[in-house]
Amino acid sequence: MDTVLHVALGADLLGVFFFAVSGSLLAARKGFDLVGSLLLASLASLGGGVARDLILNVPPAAFTNPVYLVPPLLATVLVYFVFSRVERGMRVLVVFDAGGLALFCITGTLKALDAGLHPVSAALLGVTTAVGGGLLRDVVANEVPQLFDPRDIYALPAMLGSVVVTVLYLTGTFTLVTGTVAASLVFSLRVLAWRYGWHAPLAVRTPDARSPGVGGGR
Amino acid sequence: MDTVLHVALGADLLGVFFFAVSGSLLAARKGFDLVGSLLLASLASLGGGVARDLILNVPPAAFTNPVYLVPPLLATVLVYFVFSRVERGMRVLVVFDAGGLALFCITGTLKALDAGLHPVSAALLGVTTAVGGGLLRDVVANEVPQLFDPRDIYALPAMLGSVVVTVLYLTGTFTLVTGTVAASLVFSLRVLAWRYGWHAPLAVRTPDARSPGVGGGR
Amino acid sequence: MDTVLHVALGADLLGVFFFAVSGSLLAARKGFDLVGSLLLASLASLGGGVARDLILNVPPAAFTNPVYLVPPLLATVLVYFVFSRVERGMRVLVVFDAGGLALFCITGTLKALDAGLHPVSAALLGVTTAVGGGLLRDVVANEVPQLFDPRDIYALPAMLGSVVVTVLYLTGTFTLVTGTVAASLVFSLRVLAWRYGWHAPLAVRTPDARSPGVGGGR
Repeated sequence: MDTVLHVALGADLLGVFFFAVSGSLLAARKGFDLVGSLLLASLASLGGGVARDLILNVPPAAFTNPVYLVPPLLATVLVYFVFSRVERGMRVLVVFDAGGLALFCITGTLKALDAGLHPVSAALLGVTTAVGGGLLRDVVANEVPQLFDPRDIYALPAMLGSVVVTVLYLTGTFTLVTGTVAASLVFSLRVLAWRYGWHAPLAVRTPDARSPGVGGGR
Repeated sequence: MDTVLHVALGADLLGVFFFAVSGSLLAARKGFDLVGSLLLASLASLGGGVARDLILNVPPAAFTNPVYLVPPLLATVLVYFVFSRVERGMRVLVVFDAGGLALFCITGTLKALDAGLHPVSAALLGVTTAVGGGLLRDVVANEVPQLFDPRDIYALPAMLGSVVVTVLYLTGTFTLVTGTVAASLVFSLRVLAWRYGWHAPLAVRTPDARSPGVGGGR
Repeated sequence: MDTVLHVALGADLLGVFFFAVSGSLLAARKGFDLVGSLLLASLASLGGGVARDLILNVPPAAFTNPVYLVPPLLATVLVYFVFSRVERGMRVLVVFDAGGLALFCITGTLKALDAGLHPVSAALLGVTTAVGGGLLRDVVANEVPQLFDPRDIYALPAMLGSVVVTVLYLTGTFTLVTGTVAASLVFSLRVLAWRYGWHAPLAVRTPDARSPGVGGGR
């Protein structure tokens, strides 16, 4: 149990950092300034966890432990000094976003299970935590969220990861090793889906829905 | 009282289903995939209720009772198999959205009154519940929310419904019958307003504000 | 302490009114109707405080005290009857928004300190309260938030104000006078930054990032 808690805290902070970098990279692509970069990094990295904690009715970690502010600050500085080529931003953004997605679906599900939620609800909250920050990031930056991009899959790996973690937890086989394997699986699936354009069927069965739909909606 | 609770639960689930269909239909129009359809259906149908429960400081129903996940799943499947003609989506979308609006303003107001809120606050929370899910749905899909469309009226029927339910509740005349009448009234007003373009005065009195305002803002 | 509470309540309601006017003015610019004006005023003026109260786990003031509904109603009426020249809206909007920003960073930080939050977390919650309502307002109206506009500074004055209030509070020197000075400082910095185009460095160091970034993102 102690291991679970430590894995959860470490993974949570690492996930916060990954999403924070994705926020600062999007700020760079949109031409925002350093303050906007810090705010978008904070929203992307802390928004999902705050939503999770509000739903669990526990004090949001981001507002009780100031250490959660370090990752967004680091990300803002890192993007400012390291990523000077804005045009390469999307590839790096997707990779960091995938890292946050992988860690948050696991930590979110674990926190929900520890709080005694029904397994189905816990998996749902894990997915909410994982996709919430990135959704907020894209919405406030006035972009169609990556989450809804039909050209690859985004939420499916997080759903899979949340279910896997729930099963591991219920069967008493969640360990540092199995948790790491689950996170790696989610991360790999998301990055491969993006790289090779794996996609799910569209919301309607109309044969020619994809082209006009995307053309009209974007 | 028992009747009130049953009406509230049944009406809540039906309202969830109506908003879920509106979410999946918008996903279809925007060219999202099946996973995006499920997520937009979930956000549209569960978002308003989660906000309501967080404000009332009770555990959000969507995260404590897995039955709330059934309507979004059903809606996603229904839209995939039944609504293959995307171009007809808007009319159906408005009708389902109006159904959710009608039921949520009533269930939201009732839950708030049961929780002991001031009648004015209860009516406000009913309206928030009713318009919240549809607002989230439109915002994350990067659309100007239906709520703000000046060509018809959207929130006014929900406001009326919340006030009517508050009065019925306070006078002890809320029953299955009067509740159903109130919901039908909200639904009919919203659909008729959309069909016949009933609209409210603009936010400013400038005689020619409508044309440039709409032209610039959209 | 009593003075602190009175300052906080009065300033809170005044801040609500300022943000409400900014919401109604944006509704006017976007061509929304009177109901949309009332709703955008309510969201802009009450959204940040509701988020703050949810994070502090206290009942949201907007839903427990109906007096909070008066400012949005007043703002809607004021904008309808007074601001008939929509094209002058942006200047007035920025000034009212700056008034809300100045008061909310102070009242938000004070409420968080009174609730016993860590000083760093209290300052963070003050900034969240201050920028939250305006962010919601711009996002639901489908605009790139003022918060992220790289042509001037928006959040920096609020951050400064929250830190100043935290220091005043911790050193026991927060009074009606010092609080008013702090609010005036935040307001002046924000309005001057907007008027003279003071801006922060961009999120990346690329020399020519500003022009293509802004061009692409807007």
